[in-house]
Amino acid sequence: MFKKILIIGCGLIGSSILRAIKNKKLSKKIFVLEKSKKNISKIKKIKSNCKFIKTINKEIYDVDLVIISTPMSEYEKIIQKLNNTLKPNALITDVGSTKQNTIKLKNKSLSKKIHWILSHPIAGSEVSGPEYGNKNLFLNKWCVIIKEKKQNLKKLNLLKKFWKKIGSKVVLMNANDHDNIFSITSHLPHLIAYNLIKTAQDSEKVQRKNLIQYSAGGLRDFSRIAASNEVMWRDIFFSNDNIIKGINLFTKNLNTFKKIIQNKNNKKLLSRLSNSKKARRKIVQLKQDIAKPDFGRE
Amino acid sequence: MFKKILIIGCGLIGSSILRAIKNKKLSKKIFVLEKSKKNISKIKKIKSNCKFIKTINKEIYDVDLVIISTPMSEYEKIIQKLNNTLKPNALITDVGSTKQNTIKLKNKSLSKKIHWILSHPIAGSEVSGPEYGNKNLFLNKWCVIIKEKKQNLKKLNLLKKFWKKIGSKVVLMNANDHDNIFSITSHLPHLIAYNLIKTAQDSEKVQRKNLIQYSAGGLRDFSRIAASNEVMWRDIFFSNDNIIKGINLFTKNLNTFKKIIQNKNNKKLLSRLSNSKKARRKIVQLKQDIAKPDFGRE
Repeated sequence: MFKKILIIGCGLIGSSILRAIKNKKLSKKIFVLEKSKKNISKIKKIKSNCKFIKTINKEIYDVDLVIISTPMSEYEKIIQKLNNTLKPNALITDVGSTKQNTIKLKNKSLSKKIHWILSHPIAGSEVSGPEYGNKNLFLNKWCVIIKEKKQNLKKLNLLKKFWKKIGSKVVLMNANDHDNIFSITSHLPHLIAYNLIKTAQDSEKVQRKNLIQYSAGGLRDFSRIAASNEVMWRDIFFSNDNIIKGINLFTKNLNTFKKIIQNKNNKKLLSRLSNSKKARRKIVQLKQDIAKPDFGRE
Repeated sequence: MFKKILIIGCGLIGSSILRAIKNKKLSKKIFVLEKSKKNISKIKKIKSNCKFIKTINKEIYDVDLVIISTPMSEYEKIIQKLNNTLKPNALITDVGSTKQNTIKLKNKSLSKKIHWILSHPIAGSEVSGPEYGNKNLFLNKWCVIIKEKKQNLKKLNLLKKFWKKIGSKVVLMNANDHDNIFSITSHLPHLIAYNLIKTAQDSEKVQRKNLIQYSAGGLRDFSRIAASNEVMWRDIFFSNDNIIKGINLFTKNLNTFKKIIQNKNNKKLLSRLSNSKKARRKIVQLKQDIAKPDFGRE
């Protein structure tokens, strides 16, 4: 499918792409730019035959596809180097979790001769690092490709084909819709999980009790989500303005919830609690989770 | 261990106790009081040889142990009937999730001739009903027994032994500590999950987008918790005053979080996000969850 692919940043996502490319034989040659020596020795175990490079240099002049899978805060530096190195008409994509910020950056800084079509594969975990990567990470998972005006259709189709080959269900969306939707389905849940763990830690100090040892009743699941990579999530929280809207709506709902409890409003509380089941049924129906009950992972 | 046990309310928890009693042969005779006909036909499949009763009547006069596993809002009616029926010196326990309210109720309404020592097995799921019960539900899970002044030590030891026999790790605690601890490790997480799903549902209406289909990035996990039984959770939210304190602390932390994001305070945000990992490590260390990364349940 490709002669040469360059993966920049080879952690959980980058190394899963590397494994999937190897598995599906999607490229004759793969370059990997990864700064961490520890990671490099882990990536070597994949036996992908990739060539490690230390800097963006003329060796990668004629790659067909560049996949940036670093934290978003590194994009700006990377663009400068790609501008000076890539052949005209090259294709770049990324896997970042927010898109309006990246479009702004791209429009400001990327050479007009190069194409950058943004991707966001909806896959991941609370762990980081190439040792957790998996060739099937993207299998049957959504991959959002960002639709813009004046996009090169040939490149767009190529990118679609690439994600489909490694198992994703591709959906096209504009950056505004993307950032709105994922502020609610992903960014707010992570922020809330981080905030709940902070609240439990604070309570432990106030109560002077080792309460975390009794986490099996619910806190446990939030702690998993709140163990996600802090650099990646800092970049997301700083770059999606919709999160503030999400926090405000959440806070408004929480205040109402509190009043319902304080007023012992039976009817309103029951309707609130049972309404959640509708969302749950939809999530299972849409295969975003399995119906199997969870009694704790053992 | 017992001659006769009565289980009142035989859903997920009650039927798991029934299965465990049968499995460990802890009682010669088991009575089950369950109102739902549907549930009764499901309980029959357990083949526990239990005797179903329709009301609390003189047949259960001399049971050694009564286990109440109904929603807490039914306790008051049940106590009246037990007062009129049980032999002096009988032992009652329950499995409710809040304790100060139950102690008040017990002190007000229970006949002084009868012992009620409160239990709270920390086990469960988002599903309800006897079909989901499991004889190993309590295995290696905490069971809190509430310590009070003037408790009959012989009965207390008997109850401890009972929970240990069915696999629980027993811990003694006073009701105040219990309600404080579980307001943070269980009740607040559930309330927050319900509130997050409500916020996602509201956002879906505002955005007019089918955003729930993209739930795999985090919302999914909250939706599971927020699918829990609404009657049980209504009773919990109405009966633990500490939840309001929890909501207030959560809201205060959320406001600070919002400001940190709005001010793009890099250092504070990174320290907040990485601090969560400490709680996560502790939770795994204390065997409240496994370390295995979660990429979504499939």
